[in-house]
Amino acid sequence: MGDSDSDMDYYGSQISNLIEQLGSLPGIGSKTAQRLAFHIISMPPERVEALAASLTQARRNVRYCKECGTLTDQELCPICSDLKRDHRTIMVVESSRDLAAYEKTGHYNGVYHVLQGVISPQLGIGPSDIRLKELMQRLQGDVDEVIIATGSSLEGETTAMYISRLVKPTGIRVTRIASGVPVGGDLEYIDEVTLLRALDGRVEL
Amino acid sequence: MGDSDSDMDYYGSQISNLIEQLGSLPGIGSKTAQRLAFHIISMPPERVEALAASLTQARRNVRYCKECGTLTDQELCPICSDLKRDHRTIMVVESSRDLAAYEKTGHYNGVYHVLQGVISPQLGIGPSDIRLKELMQRLQGDVDEVIIATGSSLEGETTAMYISRLVKPTGIRVTRIASGVPVGGDLEYIDEVTLLRALDGRVEL
Repeated sequence: MGDSDSDMDYYGSQISNLIEQLGSLPGIGSKTAQRLAFHIISMPPERVEALAASLTQARRNVRYCKECGTLTDQELCPICSDLKRDHRTIMVVESSRDLAAYEKTGHYNGVYHVLQGVISPQLGIGPSDIRLKELMQRLQGDVDEVIIATGSSLEGETTAMYISRLVKPTGIRVTRIASGVPVGGDLEYIDEVTLLRALDGRVEL
Repeated sequence: MGDSDSDMDYYGSQISNLIEQLGSLPGIGSKTAQRLAFHIISMPPERVEALAASLTQARRNVRYCKECGTLTDQELCPICSDLKRDHRTIMVVESSRDLAAYEKTGHYNGVYHVLQGVISPQLGIGPSDIRLKELMQRLQGDVDEVIIATGSSLEGETTAMYISRLVKPTGIRVTRIASGVPVGGDLEYIDEVTLLRALDGRVEL
């Protein structure tokens, strides 16, 4: 930190502070930070104000949807509050990003349940640390099918098995997205066609 | 814009606004924007406030150094106001980023002159559109050497030739960084060793 500080003394403290702040974001290296900073200081002031406001507003108002647990800025996320969606089909995903990945396919009309994690004995994350209790509560309503769309990592598969055993006694249909999803792959990086194929090829658990 | 808007409706308007704003920055694609947004909304609120403030402050106070013309937030940039630097050696660069590239080598102790452009007949940028008048004014003071460090593109070379012809009649030594800099290369992407070698191997013009 002190190093990059003195490194950028030639800009003046405010510009170097901006470069440092941008460079502390994940995936933003020092060259990208500098490039972004130069872009920002050449933007119309009102656009910079809008960008700054979007940061603080989103941070201030972010919360978890009280129904599905996804990140949103409303009490009920846009999907859960959409009456045109099929609320009897619940896709269980690990994170809001995985939800986003399936939403981008534009072909899934059910709702979601965001676990906010996966069972991982290695990291000490047990079944009670992810949103399983909330899922079981939702299943007391009218639900036809639970589609388990956790990743195909060891943790994702373990979590899928665990959920399947939990849900089966309720008599609700439990399916798992097909293993068209590459083993060990992160859902959010997979192309939409593969995601759709995995959805179509889902199997009874 | 409208497309990516509806694409992200599932987050809620404030988060999707943040993703959109971040995605409009150069080199930030939609996945990176989403990743950054998620990181930002999970940061401590005070750190987000600091990031937002650094944006608006840097934008509000950015200006050009009245001496060398580099981007800074002070009247005189930290280099021009540093009495320990050799003010009799002036390196002429195209942009503040190129200045930063040479500063990072840590081995140049002179000062700079930022042209804020290069002569480009194609883009209609003539000698009077870059900071040449300001350079000639500075040369009326005590100056021993002008090092021309414009890029090795056609425009950079043209500008170098033009400056050399302008400065020579004053009797001040004019040098050009060696062509260790790859032809057509952008100065800011070149490693420090190459930049230093080009500086050491500079030739009389």
